[in-house]
Amino acid sequence: MAGNSFGNLFKVSTFGESHGKAIGGVIDGCPSGITLDLAAIQKDLDRRKPGQSAIVTQRKEPDEVEFFSGIFEGKTTGTPIGFAIHNTNQKSKDYGHIKDSYRPSHADYVYDQKYGFRDYRGGGRSSARETASRVVAGAIAKQFLKGIEIQAFVSQVGNLKLNKDYRELDLSQIENNIVRCPDQVVASQMEDYIKAIKKEGDTIGGVITCVAKNVPIGLGEPVFDKLHAELGKAMLSINAVKGFEYGSGFDGVIMKGSEHNDQFNTDGTTKTNYSGGIQGGISNGMDIYFNVAFKPVATVIQGYETIDRQGNKVQAQGKGRHDPCVVPRAVPIVEAMTALVLADFTLINRAIKL
Amino acid sequence: MAGNSFGNLFKVSTFGESHGKAIGGVIDGCPSGITLDLAAIQKDLDRRKPGQSAIVTQRKEPDEVEFFSGIFEGKTTGTPIGFAIHNTNQKSKDYGHIKDSYRPSHADYVYDQKYGFRDYRGGGRSSARETASRVVAGAIAKQFLKGIEIQAFVSQVGNLKLNKDYRELDLSQIENNIVRCPDQVVASQMEDYIKAIKKEGDTIGGVITCVAKNVPIGLGEPVFDKLHAELGKAMLSINAVKGFEYGSGFDGVIMKGSEHNDQFNTDGTTKTNYSGGIQGGISNGMDIYFNVAFKPVATVIQGYETIDRQGNKVQAQGKGRHDPCVVPRAVPIVEAMTALVLADFTLINRAIKL
Amino acid sequence: MAGNSFGNLFKVSTFGESHGKAIGGVIDGCPSGITLDLAAIQKDLDRRKPGQSAIVTQRKEPDEVEFFSGIFEGKTTGTPIGFAIHNTNQKSKDYGHIKDSYRPSHADYVYDQKYGFRDYRGGGRSSARETASRVVAGAIAKQFLKGIEIQAFVSQVGNLKLNKDYRELDLSQIENNIVRCPDQVVASQMEDYIKAIKKEGDTIGGVITCVAKNVPIGLGEPVFDKLHAELGKAMLSINAVKGFEYGSGFDGVIMKGSEHNDQFNTDGTTKTNYSGGIQGGISNGMDIYFNVAFKPVATVIQGYETIDRQGNKVQAQGKGRHDPCVVPRAVPIVEAMTALVLADFTLINRAIKL
Amino acid sequence: MAGNSFGNLFKVSTFGESHGKAIGGVIDGCPSGITLDLAAIQKDLDRRKPGQSAIVTQRKEPDEVEFFSGIFEGKTTGTPIGFAIHNTNQKSKDYGHIKDSYRPSHADYVYDQKYGFRDYRGGGRSSARETASRVVAGAIAKQFLKGIEIQAFVSQVGNLKLNKDYRELDLSQIENNIVRCPDQVVASQMEDYIKAIKKEGDTIGGVITCVAKNVPIGLGEPVFDKLHAELGKAMLSINAVKGFEYGSGFDGVIMKGSEHNDQFNTDGTTKTNYSGGIQGGISNGMDIYFNVAFKPVATVIQGYETIDRQGNKVQAQGKGRHDPCVVPRAVPIVEAMTALVLADFTLINRAIKL
Repeated sequence: MAGNSFGNLFKVSTFGESHGKAIGGVIDGCPSGITLDLAAIQKDLDRRKPGQSAIVTQRKEPDEVEFFSGIFEGKTTGTPIGFAIHNTNQKSKDYGHIKDSYRPSHADYVYDQKYGFRDYRGGGRSSARETASRVVAGAIAKQFLKGIEIQAFVSQVGNLKLNKDYRELDLSQIENNIVRCPDQVVASQMEDYIKAIKKEGDTIGGVITCVAKNVPIGLGEPVFDKLHAELGKAMLSINAVKGFEYGSGFDGVIMKGSEHNDQFNTDGTTKTNYSGGIQGGISNGMDIYFNVAFKPVATVIQGYETIDRQGNKVQAQGKGRHDPCVVPRAVPIVEAMTALVLADFTLINRAIKL
Repeated sequence: MAGNSFGNLFKVSTFGESHGKAIGGVIDGCPSGITLDLAAIQKDLDRRKPGQSAIVTQRKEPDEVEFFSGIFEGKTTGTPIGFAIHNTNQKSKDYGHIKDSYRPSHADYVYDQKYGFRDYRGGGRSSARETASRVVAGAIAKQFLKGIEIQAFVSQVGNLKLNKDYRELDLSQIENNIVRCPDQVVASQMEDYIKAIKKEGDTIGGVITCVAKNVPIGLGEPVFDKLHAELGKAMLSINAVKGFEYGSGFDGVIMKGSEHNDQFNTDGTTKTNYSGGIQGGISNGMDIYFNVAFKPVATVIQGYETIDRQGNKVQAQGKGRHDPCVVPRAVPIVEAMTALVLADFTLINRAIKL
Repeated sequence: MAGNSFGNLFKVSTFGESHGKAIGGVIDGCPSGITLDLAAIQKDLDRRKPGQSAIVTQRKEPDEVEFFSGIFEGKTTGTPIGFAIHNTNQKSKDYGHIKDSYRPSHADYVYDQKYGFRDYRGGGRSSARETASRVVAGAIAKQFLKGIEIQAFVSQVGNLKLNKDYRELDLSQIENNIVRCPDQVVASQMEDYIKAIKKEGDTIGGVITCVAKNVPIGLGEPVFDKLHAELGKAMLSINAVKGFEYGSGFDGVIMKGSEHNDQFNTDGTTKTNYSGGIQGGISNGMDIYFNVAFKPVATVIQGYETIDRQGNKVQAQGKGRHDPCVVPRAVPIVEAMTALVLADFTLINRAIKL
Repeated sequence: MAGNSFGNLFKVSTFGESHGKAIGGVIDGCPSGITLDLAAIQKDLDRRKPGQSAIVTQRKEPDEVEFFSGIFEGKTTGTPIGFAIHNTNQKSKDYGHIKDSYRPSHADYVYDQKYGFRDYRGGGRSSARETASRVVAGAIAKQFLKGIEIQAFVSQVGNLKLNKDYRELDLSQIENNIVRCPDQVVASQMEDYIKAIKKEGDTIGGVITCVAKNVPIGLGEPVFDKLHAELGKAMLSINAVKGFEYGSGFDGVIMKGSEHNDQFNTDGTTKTNYSGGIQGGISNGMDIYFNVAFKPVATVIQGYETIDRQGNKVQAQGKGRHDPCVVPRAVPIVEAMTALVLADFTLINRAIKL
């Protein structure tokens, strides 16, 4: 089916192209009676916003959300929440150069092949601008999930890796630097590195780690809709994501069962948490944590050779205003998608209890 | 929603517990007129079957599938294909010891918490036995996907890693050893290692790599149902999976955009394939490849301390017949889930073309 | 999507052809901990069973259901309930005559056109035999819906109409005659009429009225999934159904708003119930009642002219064993589909409450 | 699940309350490359618009649709089409009187019961204003369904019934009178009657008949998603609808099978069409026709007694601007929902063909 909706009971459908009139969406299934903190929603949008610091794209967008429905006297009504973010800074001319040619490792080529033609301006629908709608929906999901704490942060940029377990970190520091890495020392190294990469007109990848605390026991619907399977899909649906692992992840491969098993305490908690808060696809009440790998942004401000729609070789060059490294701005997106998954499973879990 | 269905247009719903009467499922949406090769379906089941070699569980199950419907005169009718695999080797007594206690890193605890009680025999619904139904559905999907070649193999067991790109390997060798690793030298090292681990009464994790060739351009439905997002969900829904990466994956993080971008040839193919055959969530015609990380099996034949339903400490010991390493038997499961994802997107892609 | 599943949270997927090995299904989403009364399930199957009386088809089928999963120690586990009803009385030879020709007003022609070929035996998938699986799922839904009373009965056969409001009838009499009409006098007239029609080798249509009492307020999900919209779809999905109306139905058309409005009592109940227990698509706590129109069975034991696959005229004659009037056996099917709709909305309604 | 989406592959999700900022929706799955005739979309909106004639509500709304996305250079891109219709004429003060009391046979009471509170202005989400979004989506579906002709008309108002088969009518006359009845004589009688009812401050019900011509063979997905079952659900989801029948409908009940069966011509068409163009839930290429029953509008401009949120009796009176009879404006809504159903099944049918 057309793939622009996410969730079953707490469902968001998004619309919008990078340089169209507006992006936005419909949130269907948000329970009624939630007093919405609109400032908190805008705050998450601002964390994702372009132009917020020296290490992100300098494109200027106010990214203010307009709500059309589903909220009355400050509270959710249980009816669909329709919203839009109007595109105000549409320098389409920046994109004339890609109208007829395909940028390497972008979606230009496959969109033309799949749909016959495309809105080429800024990548159209394939632009990460769409994720602003996810942040709006996720911010509302967070307010529904009162009590659950979701915090994402940058744990790696290129080779600069935060070699600490999240439990050794002070997550209250995440927003105290423009990289969104809770270790100020590593954060400044990452910042310098991103600036250097930017100067080269190049880009670099990174990893975001996300932690969800106070998640109640029982979320997740085996055998296919396991909690970590939906989290994985949610993360992989974010632009530029190449990998997902939770709990022990790929490192768990080299462990023996006798080491990897999480022994129980008498209260049902576990002494270790290699399981990452999920067993058999269902939350077990321990912290949920996972890593998300982002590739380097494909748009590089360097000349390159590519092909046009007719398959002729053409010389091209990255233009427009782009991110040298996407992870600082992707932190609120990872949180938003996590909130959407947890909100959906929370509603489903209520339903099935006899 | 109850999470026992996978796919939208090519949809499988499975049922069954490890030690119930039967497991099975319903395949809804399989196009009509496909002449089914039933032997090929059984062959995939046999590749997953317990007792097939010295390095897998010695539980004996014929795992023969019975088809109830949807097939007439050897061909699919376009109506639902109902099937069952009868459980013949139900040594429930092997599991009396877990009736009232929770095995570490198993789903026993969360199932009791979520559902109030559970069929504890062999893990009940949470047992990997369920995946036999997926193999049946996937084997049918493979026959629908004529032309597309899906091959999975073991690329890592514990620390033993196949340090080769899949393009340097002879994939025709996969089935020539019981580990299902295409490099015979590494395969025998892996085999020895698994046997040693088994002797210890312990278990070890591993990685499966999957390659899909000749996938047509255009499969995948952005923005949420990206091809790699559904593949990731499909893989993460398999028991014991902890991570998924495609194309450059986690290693792509340390690359620069100028290195990572896949330059086009004039025919639309690319010189490199860090994208893993998928751009913007849509197949681009290049090989699709990804890695799936499996944790060590939780059941170890060693004594351990755990808790019972009342939260009392109890001494327990792994019994029953278990796999020291799950990856050799998981290879056909990875292929099956890959086939289900590709079959579903193939149908959707047909629909949306004007 | 392939249309063999019904419901969202309480979902049933059915499989099976009239003369295949078995029919059956998977119920996914049934809450755990329900102690199932298997005899009650069989009782509903028996009410639908062929050969139960002189006015229904004389085909003999035991219609015994075998459960494969989802039930442990007599209780539902919250995992999928897989089941099958084995076809024991497959006189395929009865159907050789329709292998190459199309019965008028049957699905033979459209199935060949849509799927390219068909299992012609007894109508294959288009046979009302499939509804036995619905009765199993519905009987389980009834047990989940403890407290809600669902009663269907025959209110019309041909011109013989029960000209009474259901509130004037003694619904405890429904099962006291083979027509399933609560008015014994009209029932015997209907019985005689059906016998006469049968003697003619002809068939006749009828109407079933269904009443659901003690339905809690709040079931139904506007704007598209209104309670009566799903009930309508559920009924129209039953073989031979041509129409659905609830509350005042088609007769409400000639009323004025001032007459039709249901005035409130101070407790929120209404003095009249033209609304049929549903306002704005949501149950209001009053009785839900609706009528379902069934056409005459298409198979008549008379000679007729029709065409074969090549479009040649051929002479044919109804064979096999068929119902002269379908409504007596359809009563439990109408109840089953009603239960499935109410069960699904009950689960959804739990989920959305803040 | 939250019920504000309709369709599977051609899916529309709507949002908006009667007196909120805007109503609108997202159309997901519309194939790419359709050159949209925006004037035709507005024309359907105008046919539904309030204030268009003397026999409809005099509320003035321009009802102009703004498209946000999914259209580029005049053509659909295959990405979601987001749109809104801004509410300009929000006389909320008209509705102060219903803030704390419940209008009989409206959704006021059940919305408060289900959601805990409601946007009471003009009925909020339960207002038929929502259907304007359906008309937009349906108008686009019509353009996708090139070749299929969908025409709805008023066939009954109160007791005034059009006693003709649609084949005897000149459907080109439908838009030539404000009632939208193709028989000019009956139309003027209906017009006079509606005016008289309006003078009384009362309302009256009606019936809309819809005909779909040139529908290809094969649309519909048995066994649950039968074509007529989805059409029935679609119609019953429209405000004020109480009944649906297709083909012979409720009148088919009194016919014998030998009369009711549609005999084949050698080209596969049928001599009669009691089936209403659908057999076994699948279109057979003949005209599809059905009737939709609408109750009288609940808002009557007369004094009445009702209750408030505390259950106290209160005197109330209909205010605001309302329709004395809803069917003239509902004609384009019935067409829109028909188009949405046919578009969805058209896409599904493409997918399943081998």
